[in-house]
This record gives sequence, structure tokens and C-alpha cells, in this order.
Amino acid sequence: MEKRKIEVCYSPALFPYYENRDAIVVVTDILRASSAIVTAFMNGVKRIIPVGTLEEARAYKDRGYMVAAERDGFVRDFADFGNSPYNFSKERVAGNQIVYSTTNGTNAIQLASSGSQVLIGAYLNITALADHIREEKKDLLVLCAGWKNKFNLEDTLFAGALSGMVLEDDRFYTICDATLGAIDLYEAARGDMMGYIEKVAQRHRLRKNNLDDVIGYCHEIDRTELVPVLENNYLVPLIDGK
Amino acid sequence: MEKRKIEVCYSPALFPYYENRDAIVVVTDILRASSAIVTAFMNGVKRIIPVGTLEEARAYKDRGYMVAAERDGFVRDFADFGNSPYNFSKERVAGNQIVYSTTNGTNAIQLASSGSQVLIGAYLNITALADHIREEKKDLLVLCAGWKNKFNLEDTLFAGALSGMVLEDDRFYTICDATLGAIDLYEAARGDMMGYIEKVAQRHRLRKNNLDDVIGYCHEIDRTELVPVLENNYLVPLIDGK
Repeated sequence: MEKRKIEVCYSPALFPYYENRDAIVVVTDILRASSAIVTAFMNGVKRIIPVGTLEEARAYKDRGYMVAAERDGFVRDFADFGNSPYNFSKERVAGNQIVYSTTNGTNAIQLASSGSQVLIGAYLNITALADHIREEKKDLLVLCAGWKNKFNLEDTLFAGALSGMVLEDDRFYTICDATLGAIDLYEAARGDMMGYIEKVAQRHRLRKNNLDDVIGYCHEIDRTELVPVLENNYLVPLIDGK
Repeated sequence: MEKRKIEVCYSPALFPYYENRDAIVVVTDILRASSAIVTAFMNGVKRIIPVGTLEEARAYKDRGYMVAAERDGFVRDFADFGNSPYNFSKERVAGNQIVYSTTNGTNAIQLASSGSQVLIGAYLNITALADHIREEKKDLLVLCAGWKNKFNLEDTLFAGALSGMVLEDDRFYTICDATLGAIDLYEAARGDMMGYIEKVAQRHRLRKNNLDDVIGYCHEIDRTELVPVLENNYLVPLIDGK
């Protein structure tokens, strides 16, 4: 049987060099967009419409949509709420559709749409995600949202965790240096994840702005089996066997 | 005293996001361009003219220059020799100037020229390089040549080794996730560097093409105190105190 390859792309700006139309692309932005999206589905959101620019988000707002929008961690004035997973509460999101625009995450989702399937990945749904990828037996490309096109550690650690789980199935392999590096960094960090996360740049940005209450939550494993998937231009929960 | 920051850029394609006109930019392409350039200076080359394209390299050849040129590890037919440090022998290079074009390294050098000073870094000259950077007390940006704009491990490990040495001087600091990641990967690898290098993609490319005889040599530490520096459009040895 032909084995399927795993690659990790550390920045949206590197995506053209990793692009793979046959791959399942997992977009991750651990602090905080992908953790927030998964949380929204846990809380019953009907669908999420990711938009890249604030202009698009504002246009949706003018048309009556509920809009979550942030830049650099801060809620934009026209938006209903921002980027914290705690904003996506059951009371707010259940049964609704939400337009969502963030500094790094939503652009990465749009880039990824050239792949055969786009999934949203977080620690919150990591095992369900790995199970689905192994069942599909397609190539895997993990796209880290990064920080304004720079490498970041928190997305890389997640990419390493997910790649390691999928590689336990020997129908998958990797010869990608970025994947091997991510796995080794995750191995270095996993014994004391919160201690390790202390040093990442985004942790300091969030603390400075009093937005760091979610860091522990964003690293909790397997809170749900829901996997958000991009269908046309919006995110819905993946139905198994699809 | 104002502290100086250290950053690492994992790919030439990410350079616009890290560009820093006040920084000393160290370009590294451990397997094999930067190791070859340092070796050439050890063997008495007068100067090296790095050129990005094969067309430029060929034009120099037509004008009578000695030309080293490779793509994907292979010497180009019009060139005098290729990319192995062993090609840059004393007999060949002493007192001469050489035009040099490689898959990844020479483009990275041209990009880096927006910095305040461009140095060529390899394990072969790592301590001399770190000493010079500490003396200059400028920001440091390590630019990894990578592989066709993808992340590679061997350049990242070197970036971690160099950053760690410079950070021993407390007038330097980093809040750059790529630097912290490179340092942690170097710490994971340094106990058995040749074992670690076994897994990197470039190691397999070189072995496949019988070009892997130089891998041990390219990881030897402090074979020289010479540091190549870009002056105008060519590389010469740095004269101390300059």
C-alpha cells in the first residue's frame, strides 16, 4: 500500500512551498482562533463563516450577522465579541451562525482551501482529528497560523503532537524537516507544557493585555470529538464517514 | 545599557517579516554552501562573488572567471566545480577570486544585504563569529538558507548553537519563538549530532547522490577564526576591529 506523507508548514507565507491538493490540511492557531472555533462547535454553533479582512467582517455585521472580530488580541469596535474561546458560550452561539475574523487564523483557513479537505485543529479535539486523518488515509499537511507570518512555538508544538499521533499508524511517514522538528519540540515540552508555554511570545502578548486566562484551557486535551470542516466557505461539524 | 535582540529566520521566504536594517545578518547553509565558503577562506581565496542565478554565473564564466555552481547538489556543466567544501582546495583557490552560485545559499546572501553587516556562518567558524557579534553589540538576525524556501533542520541547529553562544553575554536577549525553538532543537541534538543529522532530509539527498562525504566535516567546530563578510557585492575575510 502506498504510504501517506505528513508535512508541517510553519507560516502562511511558506504555504506555496508546501501546498498539496491531495492533502487534508489541518489549520491550527492554538492561542486562540482554532481553540475558539472548536469551542464554538462544542457549544452548538450552527456554522462559522471565516473572513480574512475586517472590511468583510464589517459588511456582514451591517447585513445583520453576529460577528466575532479581533486584531492583535483586541475586539474590534463594530464586532459583537472577540477571539477568546470563553466568548463563544452556549448562550451566545447555540444554533447561530457567526462570522469570524482574526489576526492570523482566518487567513490561514482561506489559504488552506486548496487542499482536499480543511479541518480545524486544537488540543481540544486532537484525538478525534487524528482518528479521522488515519481513517481517510490521505496526505496530511498541518498549517500553523503563526504570528503575522512569523514562526510561533504554540502552533508548532500542536503540529508535533498531532503528527506524532498520526505517525503511530505505519501507513503514514514523514521526511519533512519541519515535521521532525515539531515532534522533537513537542517531546521537549510535553512533560511540562504550561512551563514551556511560559516562554512563548504570544503568552506574553496575552498576559500584557490581560487576555491570558485561556491558556490552560487551550491546552486541554480531548474535550470534544467534534472536528470543524470547511464546506464551501463556512465551517460546519464533520459528520463521520463523510 | 540597551540590550540587543536576537532573531532567527527559518527561510528566505520569511525574511521580509524579520528584516532588520540595524542587525548583523549571519547567513548559514550548513550543507553545504556556508561551510564551503568558510573553507575557501581557510584555503586563501581572495574573494568570493556570490551570484543568485545560473545565467549570471555563466556570464562570469564567459568573461574568464573561475566559477563554482551547483543546483540540487550537482555541478553545472559550464562551471569549474560545485558545492563541496572539498572542491575549494588550497591548490584551486589560494589567491584567486571565485564566482559562486548555489541552490539556496547565494540567494540568501543577496537578501541579507539589507542588514548593517552580512557574515557567513558555519560550525567551522562559530566561536569567531560569536565573538565578533558580541564585540559589535548590534542586533543579530540569523538567516537560514533552508531548502527551496522550506525549513531545514541542519541550518536551524546551527542557528540555535550560535544564538545560545551569543546569549551567554547578558547584553543580548531574545523574545523570538524561532530562536527559542532553534536553541531547544540544538540542545536535543548536540549530544549526538551525527545521529541527529541522520534524519534530516538534506542528509538523504546528499547520500543518494554520493555527496555525503562532507557531513562530518561541515559539523566540525572552530577550524578557523576567519569570518567572511559581504563588502559591496563580494565576500572577503573580516578584519578585526572593522
